[in-house]
Amino acid sequence: MTQPINVVMPVYDGVTQLDFTGPHQFLSRTPDLNVRVASLGGQSITADHLTFSDLDDLTAVDSCDVLLVPGGGGCVAVIENELFIKEIARLGATARYLTSVCSGSLILGAAGFLTGRRAACHWAWRELLPIFGAIADDGRIVWDGNILSGGGVTAGIDFVLALIAELRGQRVAEMVQLGLEYAPQPPFNSGRPDTAPVEVLEAVNVRTGPSRAQRRARLEAWATARHA
Amino acid sequence: MTQPINVVMPVYDGVTQLDFTGPHQFLSRTPDLNVRVASLGGQSITADHLTFSDLDDLTAVDSCDVLLVPGGGGCVAVIENELFIKEIARLGATARYLTSVCSGSLILGAAGFLTGRRAACHWAWRELLPIFGAIADDGRIVWDGNILSGGGVTAGIDFVLALIAELRGQRVAEMVQLGLEYAPQPPFNSGRPDTAPVEVLEAVNVRTGPSRAQRRARLEAWATARHA
Repeated sequence: MTQPINVVMPVYDGVTQLDFTGPHQFLSRTPDLNVRVASLGGQSITADHLTFSDLDDLTAVDSCDVLLVPGGGGCVAVIENELFIKEIARLGATARYLTSVCSGSLILGAAGFLTGRRAACHWAWRELLPIFGAIADDGRIVWDGNILSGGGVTAGIDFVLALIAELRGQRVAEMVQLGLEYAPQPPFNSGRPDTAPVEVLEAVNVRTGPSRAQRRARLEAWATARHA
Repeated sequence: MTQPINVVMPVYDGVTQLDFTGPHQFLSRTPDLNVRVASLGGQSITADHLTFSDLDDLTAVDSCDVLLVPGGGGCVAVIENELFIKEIARLGATARYLTSVCSGSLILGAAGFLTGRRAACHWAWRELLPIFGAIADDGRIVWDGNILSGGGVTAGIDFVLALIAELRGQRVAEMVQLGLEYAPQPPFNSGRPDTAPVEVLEAVNVRTGPSRAQRRARLEAWATARHA
């Protein structure tokens, strides 16, 4: 009999829900896998006006085979939350695989797992990885040893197929892919800074500029305090 | 000032969560759009072991500009639920756009909106559309008049970009696409029956065969009773 694999997804207010709902959908259709979504105290969390409840308590999770950390605007606040980062460090210390989607790699970095390691991240957050000693990689799916990271948001779906193939073999990943009809045909080609129309990239940069400067300042202050 | 557009997503136990969380993530990043997720009585719903709470009450929603119906294994039970279908029929009667993802098109069909119309559906459910007088289309994004339907599960993301372009223009859709880094690169090519390895398709067909026969029987019985 195949040994079940335990996957834990730590979530928090302000997570980008598709960072974990995408991978969750694929993992929940994979045989012999247990997926738990966990928050501090098991409290409900809100993400983009959706409320997720009946969550596991992160502090009560003994261990896991795969730690899967999603990103989102709320990641800066949870990096500043000592208890949350302590739990990530604790679970990550014994996990077989440390994984992340989007800016979730910054959380893995803050927990001390990315020093000298390559990791993916959302394109607009990637430049922050060196704050945690990590090497930013612009790949959509990035392996470095037992660390698997995905790029921004929707990259979580490509990432999770690679994860399922690693855990259960390519044939199982292909069955899940067929069941969820993952044969993408984006009607526009604007998913990356190097393919988006110039005016689209400029507009996004103008809109997100202030928040990007602010999060860099907060994370640099956090790193300084940590090493003081 | 741009008039806000109201989108309502009716959900139910056994919905495939990515059918609506994918489109929801894109719509929640689109300016001047209100997205509500609604269930009968506003009750929490469970989908693939995730619990969604703080939902709107479907029966209390006056009207909407866009009705977006997700699919999933639970769609057969809600088609058999007179109150649910009555609410879909009521909201759909005045909506500017009737839209669906995956087997959500069967719900639109049961509410009487697809007679003689083309619609998309999950590949393994598509053959059921004629029960409701609809013409099955194997496209990933299918327009017929004011009806926009998407194929299975992940097609909801391609579908919603087309919807945002229709509602707010292509430039806005491209900005949302860039923000969510939607530049898919599936590691395998198994997302459609005609591209999946033969043994993968056969294994999925064997596994889903009994449930497919069962849902056809239930929906045909429903249609017979309806027209008796």
